[in-house]
Formats: sequence, C-alpha cells, structure tokens
Amino acid sequence: MKATFLYGASDVRVDEIAPASILKPTDAVIRTVVACVCGSDLWDYYSKPAAETGVAKGHEVIGVIDQIGAEVRDFKVGDLVVIPFVASCGACDFCQANQQTSCRNIEFFGHGGGGACQAEMVRIPWVDGTAVKLPVTEDSELMPSLLTLSDVLCTGYHAAVSAGVQAGDTVAVVGDGAVGLSAVIAAKLMGAGRIILMSRNESRSKLGIEFGATDIVTERDEAGIAKVRELTGGDGAARVLECVGTQSAIDTAIAITRDYGVIGRVGAAQYDNIPMNFGTIMRNIGIYGGVAPARAYIETLMPLILDGTINPGKVFDLTVGIDEISEGYKAMAERTAIKALIKF
Amino acid sequence: MKATFLYGASDVRVDEIAPASILKPTDAVIRTVVACVCGSDLWDYYSKPAAETGVAKGHEVIGVIDQIGAEVRDFKVGDLVVIPFVASCGACDFCQANQQTSCRNIEFFGHGGGGACQAEMVRIPWVDGTAVKLPVTEDSELMPSLLTLSDVLCTGYHAAVSAGVQAGDTVAVVGDGAVGLSAVIAAKLMGAGRIILMSRNESRSKLGIEFGATDIVTERDEAGIAKVRELTGGDGAARVLECVGTQSAIDTAIAITRDYGVIGRVGAAQYDNIPMNFGTIMRNIGIYGGVAPARAYIETLMPLILDGTINPGKVFDLTVGIDEISEGYKAMAERTAIKALIKF
Repeated sequence: MKATFLYGASDVRVDEIAPASILKPTDAVIRTVVACVCGSDLWDYYSKPAAETGVAKGHEVIGVIDQIGAEVRDFKVGDLVVIPFVASCGACDFCQANQQTSCRNIEFFGHGGGGACQAEMVRIPWVDGTAVKLPVTEDSELMPSLLTLSDVLCTGYHAAVSAGVQAGDTVAVVGDGAVGLSAVIAAKLMGAGRIILMSRNESRSKLGIEFGATDIVTERDEAGIAKVRELTGGDGAARVLECVGTQSAIDTAIAITRDYGVIGRVGAAQYDNIPMNFGTIMRNIGIYGGVAPARAYIETLMPLILDGTINPGKVFDLTVGIDEISEGYKAMAERTAIKALIKF
Repeated sequence: MKATFLYGASDVRVDEIAPASILKPTDAVIRTVVACVCGSDLWDYYSKPAAETGVAKGHEVIGVIDQIGAEVRDFKVGDLVVIPFVASCGACDFCQANQQTSCRNIEFFGHGGGGACQAEMVRIPWVDGTAVKLPVTEDSELMPSLLTLSDVLCTGYHAAVSAGVQAGDTVAVVGDGAVGLSAVIAAKLMGAGRIILMSRNESRSKLGIEFGATDIVTERDEAGIAKVRELTGGDGAARVLECVGTQSAIDTAIAITRDYGVIGRVGAAQYDNIPMNFGTIMRNIGIYGGVAPARAYIETLMPLILDGTINPGKVFDLTVGIDEISEGYKAMAERTAIKALIKF
C-alpha cells in the first residue's frame, strides 16, 4: 500500500509498503477514504535532519473497516468510521472519564510512533474504544467536515471547554489555523457574546467571521495585546483560546485575559515555561487544557455537522491525492493553504 | 494610637501615631479587638533595607465600629466586624461576581499601601462592601477562628475552590503554614476522599491530621514527588493545593498532579514562571487561583465556625499584645510559631 513518510526537511515521500494488518485481536484495519495534513505534521517538516528511515505521518482519517480482530464487538467489515488522533481502550478509568489522551493503554498514529494515517490502509488499535461509526456513505459531501472530528474541530472545542466558555462571554482566540478557526466555531456553539479572532491573514479571518468571529485583530504581540484590551474596555477577554503553542502566543494569551479569566490552551507547546507569576496571582488567571480527548467530543459534535449547524470542513482549502501529498505539506508550510485534504 | 511598622530587616516597631480617621463618607473606623501576623507580613521582614520611614503592617483584623462615614448604610457604631484583607466597593462588576480582589475601587491595608491593621484603630474603606458583622461579642472564645476569615481560612478555601475539589477526590496540599492547614480544612469540607499534606514539621502535621489530612508526606522536592506518586498508585493527586509560592513548591505541585488534574495556587508567587510545557500539555494539567477574594467566602464559612464544624483558630499557637508584636514576627520567622494572634 501507499503510505507517507518524512525523510528530512521538506522531504515528504509516498512509499510502497506492506499493507496494514491486524496485530492484536482488538484491532481493525481500515481502507482510507479521506485523510489530511495537520499543523503538527509540520513540526519537524522544517528541520528534520535527513535520514535513511522515514517517519510515518498522519493521524486524522476516515475509512471503511476492511478487517477486524477476533475480539472486536462493536464494528463490522464495511462500517464507515472516523478515527480520533489517538487510539484509546475505552475501558480504563481515564477513558471512562472521557480523558482518552491519558488512556492507560494508549496507542498512537503517525509521528506519535504508530502507523501512518496518510496511507491507503491503517491499523486501528482498540477499535471499539477508538472509532465512531458515521451514518453516511463515503461519497457524502459532508466528508471534509466529518474528518475534522479526528482532530482540529475537537481540539478547538477542547480549548473552549477548557476555558469554560459560557453564554454571553467575551472570548479571544489566539491563532487562525484550522484549530483556531475550529475554536471560533466552538465558542459560537457555546453562546459566546463576542469572539475576537487574532488573525492577519485575509482568507483565514474571512472564514473566522463566517464561523462566528465578531472582531478581527490583525496586530500581534504588544500591539495585538493593546488592541484586544482596547476592544474590551481595558479588561481583556474572560476566555482566551490559545491555539498556536509558541511563546509569543502564550504570552499574548496571558496578557489579554481578564482578571479571573481562564485560558484554554491547546497549542502544542514549543515553550518551556508560562509567565505565571505574582502578577497573574494578583489577577487570578487560570490555565486549563492540553492535548484534546477528541474521542470525548465526537458524539456531541457529529450531529451538528450532520444537521448543518456547523461546517468545519471549510478549513480544507486544498484537496490532493496521496501521490501529491507533498504539495499539501508545502502549501501548508508556506501558509498558502489552511489545511490540505487527501482524497483516496 | 499604637500601630506597627517595619523599618528594616527584623526591625518591627510599634509607633504612636495619630488615630485612624474617616477620610471618605463610605469609610468606617474600627477599634481593634484582635489582629494577627500573616506569612506575607514576613516577605520583607528578612531583607528590607533600613529606612527612616516604616511600612505599615497587617491586613487581618476584627474590631468594633467606632466611627462611620455619612454614606455608610449597613453598619452602626458598636457593631463587631471582621475585615477581609482588601477593601472592595461591593458594587462594581468584579465585586458582584464575588471577585473582590479585582474590585475597580479596591483599597489596601498594611503593606498593600493602606493603613496598618496591626494597630489600635483601623480605617476601613468601603465598609459596606468590605466588612461582615459578627453575631458574637468581642469576648467570644471563637474570636481566633473568626479572625481567620480575614485571610488564611478564605485563602485555603480559595485554593480548594480553584482546584475544583469534589467529593471523593484525592487532594494533595503543598505547604503546612496557616494557609496550607486551612486548605486541609477546605478540602475536608468539600468531601475530599483523601488529603495528603506535605509537611515535615511535627506540630503542623499533627494539626493537619486533626483538620482532616489522611496522609503526611515529610519528604520534599524529588523525594516528596516520588512519595506522593507512590501513595496514589503512580498517578498523582487529582487536585493539588499550592499554598507556599516558591519555585520548588510550584514545581512540586506540577509534578504531583494527576493527568487532567488541577492545581489551585494561592501561594504568593516568588517565581516568575511555571514549568508548563509540552509535557503538561500532554497531561492536561490545569492551574487556577490567585489572591483569594476572602469577602466572597465569609458568609459561607462563618456559620461553620459558629456551629463548631471547623476550628481554624487552632492555627494561632502564639498570642501577644501589641507591645510584644515583634516577638510574634520573630517566632513566625523562625518557624517556632505557625501564626501569631495580637490581642488588644
């Protein structure tokens, strides 16, 4: 089968490898229908030293179940399923508490150490605990939106859940990538009264407004902080959704949070420390969040896609085939595309 | 009147100054019944350069109203009142949201920039928004416990509220000072299933057990972290109450928090950064809290003192008169006393 590997900086290749197969009786193997490129797939895209062996890529996928292990109870061959970006057993205390990213039996895809999801076939560990059946056919026009359930929509939603967004709140979103835009969708769903999106990219801010942003702040860092403060009467936003992960982004998030406000952080931290000190103690600033338990949110969000309430699939502004996947990486790296869909 | 000032390291003096007086029509002046020395009064006790002018000290006080301003509505001369450690207007949006430490008209006592509470008379700004009437007489034996409503009990309670302690939770408390011990009381009130107190001081850990601690960890730093992890099956505590404020304490708090757990931090931060990074993102560690809105909790906690449910006044293990207050500072600085009461 064809599968995607990163061999070095900007060196994405599609290799022909042995097809994915059942390794444990709780596994399934799916035939991929759609997958995509994640912002996190780009982490090592710029800098990876060249190597003989590539790193398997991709952790977002929808597919049709092709084979099932002997102990799989809830799925059968032919089911169309969406796969959250980590595999979780569904049975341990963390899974039962909807904290699947801390599952005691967690398995990863792609650069997390498991098989590539940017591939024609994918092994799904713990399929009963991991996969969610989709009540559509694989030619559904909803496929792009349903694919966002694998990661970005749920990650943006986790930011809003972590920050405790409530009806009427003023929310600021730091980051205009697919996750930041998904966070706008989530804040809107939760009834935020005002959604300030920090974005200096015209097409992204336009989509942000379509998703529910009420204000766009194009400035960054000190100027951006001043602008958000100005828009909020000097106070800052009660809920701040940090969807980038750089030091600048988390510093900005702290500075634009209202006293007693909460930051929901889901940007994969490239920083080592957060400047929480005597000043934030005096202001009672809270920070929650982390890697999103996507599995926890799929049943909540899927119906809203099916009934047309939300259309997160609009974050895909480029579609490629598996053989052109390197074009998808390149476009995202150069910010000419928000997110690339891979159609199989 | 007599009032307490810090002139330099270890140089606490009681000066005779002009009596406190009404400055604004929303003020009252109280005659002090009891006051005390706070851990935060010691911040500059060790290091303050000698100066001609002293810094007014103290922010915890119970007194009898002696004079009231023309616009005071809710109090009259002769009322016995407890004063939380900041004065808040009671009317602004932050006050209405029970976030009085961010009051838009906030005024401070003691080293915050206002008058000393370790004094025979104290000016209380915004008395209607600040003071709470006590339904006892000034000779009540409950006076020490009621005085903890000014700060430490409410601060410990804020740690538990911020961490979201719920019935059955495993809670770890970092810090065995008056605030840490109050946090044990708070965790117990909220129904914590297990309360692990980090303390290597015998009298403090004994009081902690009396207040509800189920486990004492005498080790610190790496050994302390290992011990808490061992006690919790390797997972850490779901709720961690950080009641110290040093880098070591916050680092320990992060390390002993269970995945998806929350730290309630109330220790006045002496650190500039918290090590929240990719690791804590993967573990979904949350941090909330800060300077406690004591005023918000007094009505909740006072009845529990009056009916004997809790007895936080036991944190006072030294009582001095105003003329001997430097002995109280010294004993707390040398950790021979947990907290010193000043009886007028």
